[in-house]
Amino acid sequence: MGLIVQKFGGSSVANADRVNNVASIVTDTYKAGNDVVVVVSAQGDTTDDLLKKAQEINPGASKREMDMLLAAGEQISIALLAMAIEKVGCPVVSLLGWQAGFNTNSNHSTARIKNIKTDRVKTAIDKHQIVVVAGFQGINRYDDITTLGRGGSDTSAVALAAALHADRCQIFTDVEGVFTADPRKVKNAKKLTEITYDEMLELATLGAQVLNNRSVEMGKKYNVEIEVLSSLKRVSGTIVKEVANMEKMLVRGVTKDTNVARISIIDLPDTPGIAFRIFSMLAAKNINVDIILQSVGREGSKDIAFTVSKDCEEEALAIIKGIAELQGKKVISDDEIAKVSVVGAGMETHPGAAAMMFEALYEQNINIQMISTSEIKISVLIDKNEADKAVTAIHDKFIPNA
Amino acid sequence: MGLIVQKFGGSSVANADRVNNVASIVTDTYKAGNDVVVVVSAQGDTTDDLLKKAQEINPGASKREMDMLLAAGEQISIALLAMAIEKVGCPVVSLLGWQAGFNTNSNHSTARIKNIKTDRVKTAIDKHQIVVVAGFQGINRYDDITTLGRGGSDTSAVALAAALHADRCQIFTDVEGVFTADPRKVKNAKKLTEITYDEMLELATLGAQVLNNRSVEMGKKYNVEIEVLSSLKRVSGTIVKEVANMEKMLVRGVTKDTNVARISIIDLPDTPGIAFRIFSMLAAKNINVDIILQSVGREGSKDIAFTVSKDCEEEALAIIKGIAELQGKKVISDDEIAKVSVVGAGMETHPGAAAMMFEALYEQNINIQMISTSEIKISVLIDKNEADKAVTAIHDKFIPNA
Repeated sequence: MGLIVQKFGGSSVANADRVNNVASIVTDTYKAGNDVVVVVSAQGDTTDDLLKKAQEINPGASKREMDMLLAAGEQISIALLAMAIEKVGCPVVSLLGWQAGFNTNSNHSTARIKNIKTDRVKTAIDKHQIVVVAGFQGINRYDDITTLGRGGSDTSAVALAAALHADRCQIFTDVEGVFTADPRKVKNAKKLTEITYDEMLELATLGAQVLNNRSVEMGKKYNVEIEVLSSLKRVSGTIVKEVANMEKMLVRGVTKDTNVARISIIDLPDTPGIAFRIFSMLAAKNINVDIILQSVGREGSKDIAFTVSKDCEEEALAIIKGIAELQGKKVISDDEIAKVSVVGAGMETHPGAAAMMFEALYEQNINIQMISTSEIKISVLIDKNEADKAVTAIHDKFIPNA
Repeated sequence: MGLIVQKFGGSSVANADRVNNVASIVTDTYKAGNDVVVVVSAQGDTTDDLLKKAQEINPGASKREMDMLLAAGEQISIALLAMAIEKVGCPVVSLLGWQAGFNTNSNHSTARIKNIKTDRVKTAIDKHQIVVVAGFQGINRYDDITTLGRGGSDTSAVALAAALHADRCQIFTDVEGVFTADPRKVKNAKKLTEITYDEMLELATLGAQVLNNRSVEMGKKYNVEIEVLSSLKRVSGTIVKEVANMEKMLVRGVTKDTNVARISIIDLPDTPGIAFRIFSMLAAKNINVDIILQSVGREGSKDIAFTVSKDCEEEALAIIKGIAELQGKKVISDDEIAKVSVVGAGMETHPGAAAMMFEALYEQNINIQMISTSEIKISVLIDKNEADKAVTAIHDKFIPNA
């Protein structure tokens, strides 16, 4: 039929039973007449074990040696999966990142793929072998092992699908696809059949945690059709593509993100350049600022508030306090907040979406602390304790029970 | 001072403390002004863990995928050792087999080194980096990972020392060097200062288990001075070289090997070709035959007895029983035996050595079942229960307490 790239994460290959399950998915796809290339992460606990070993010996180990260490994880999982496929009786070959041609830049632990030399993979496909490739890893121009950082295996899979001009890239996870809201929290949450890259990007950023952002960006760039589906339940998942059928929905999903902290600086002098100074200092330390709000305070002064991820809260505060112009100013931080967002390409042509969202919150008597909008997204900052209630209310407003 | 290759086995890097200990040996050598290249095996239990995982998934896994799996073991240990060296503050880089240029043939699980492209290692040495190399592994001409089999890291170290023209190759173990007999069994056992390659080869074959045979052969071929020494106690060890000072000893050591079984075939027809048939069948199945003894039996018939390692006993018996000409012949096997040997280049020019050995056994009333000799070795087969007594008696005869 075609060439399919299938990606399985660490929990999908966590033990022998799971590895055998993956082998049966892969070989069923192969036996149905497809060429199959599989991208695998390290087994669930391997990475943790390796990190612990490193921590014990040298908490300040170089990133080069950390990459060397961690890359052993996928080496183990590709070999084991290949063995499980051999047992089913299908021809198979496992390949490390460098063997599969993954060339990256030299940013150890967060390397970017520069190109993939697919000769070896293509040769194996031509020999009708199932190819099992180590995700997450590559080599730089000096032949040093590099790793792609968090969610790197998704990126490996989509990049390889692009390089091979695969017909589809299937990302297997422990959920059945992309839902309109977290199905554990929102009773009426629906699985989406299709979604656009842009919508998926907004959802991923907003904490849906189904698919790594870089992989969606790469899918968009090279127009790789990505399917998110379950490795445990054999039903079709959600397809991420350029133009998706809206299924009569105004929005695609409602998400919450509690890994967020707000920092407010009160009563700043209203002089030019102060905002630039603050945010360039934060950027220099690689701290991503999400929502920014500047309000007029008392005469000749202003307040600035912005959000960062909770992990960066302490560091951001330290940076703010180190800026000379801000000495003596009141700085408030708050991490008892949540960001709740609706995402949907349909909102671009439907001006009433924001009003509908605010109405849903008003009906629940939930106070909005900050608002941020883009073409396909509206986010509000609210009290953390009201986040789940807000998600359900907004979801029910936009996506009524069918 | 010079260029030293140091090799540490799996037990030397089994945990964080041991890794730190190795790092201190390595960095002390480096700080003393030497260039240092370190070859490391997988951590003690890693290989067992990996084998268990493979066994659980597919006991019949291909050797290619087993090599892929097992090679992850050294990847972990080189990264951890490099991290420990970083902590001491010395410049270091870890390299996998393929990165260090180890090219092998394609015999997965028992590959032979074809050549070592040392450019990368030499570049690192020129930059005054300590180089930590994964032992046991390489790649074949197709860029597939291969492993060298049992004791492979010793071979990696000696081969690398040869390729780099190193001044010395130090093999660190859990013993202090090569002894004239097992010091746990023989009170008067002495550590040897020097020993020749040939003597070491005989001792290794005979069960001294200090140094892998292939590595000694390689040392002899390329004239690499090898030192066997302890990773736990900092004293000088035993140097293996072409010509060694005999220190007034007639023999270099006395060993016992209980991993031996004797198979006897009684009352064979005295026709030409029957011995050839037996031993070519065994050779075809890769069964190594050690001592062979043929005796004249009754008129027109003969007995043949030979020894194999105990692991091969069952297989050898099955082969013998499958040979048409031997149908109905009596076949006896016995593994309650031990092979006790004396080794020493000095025996070549001292005809009385065999007599001295037999005298020692006679004095202890120990019966000799088979005898085998070479230029520098005499071996006898005796009852297993008398082996330790025999070793002590022979040792005391040849190497009196100083």
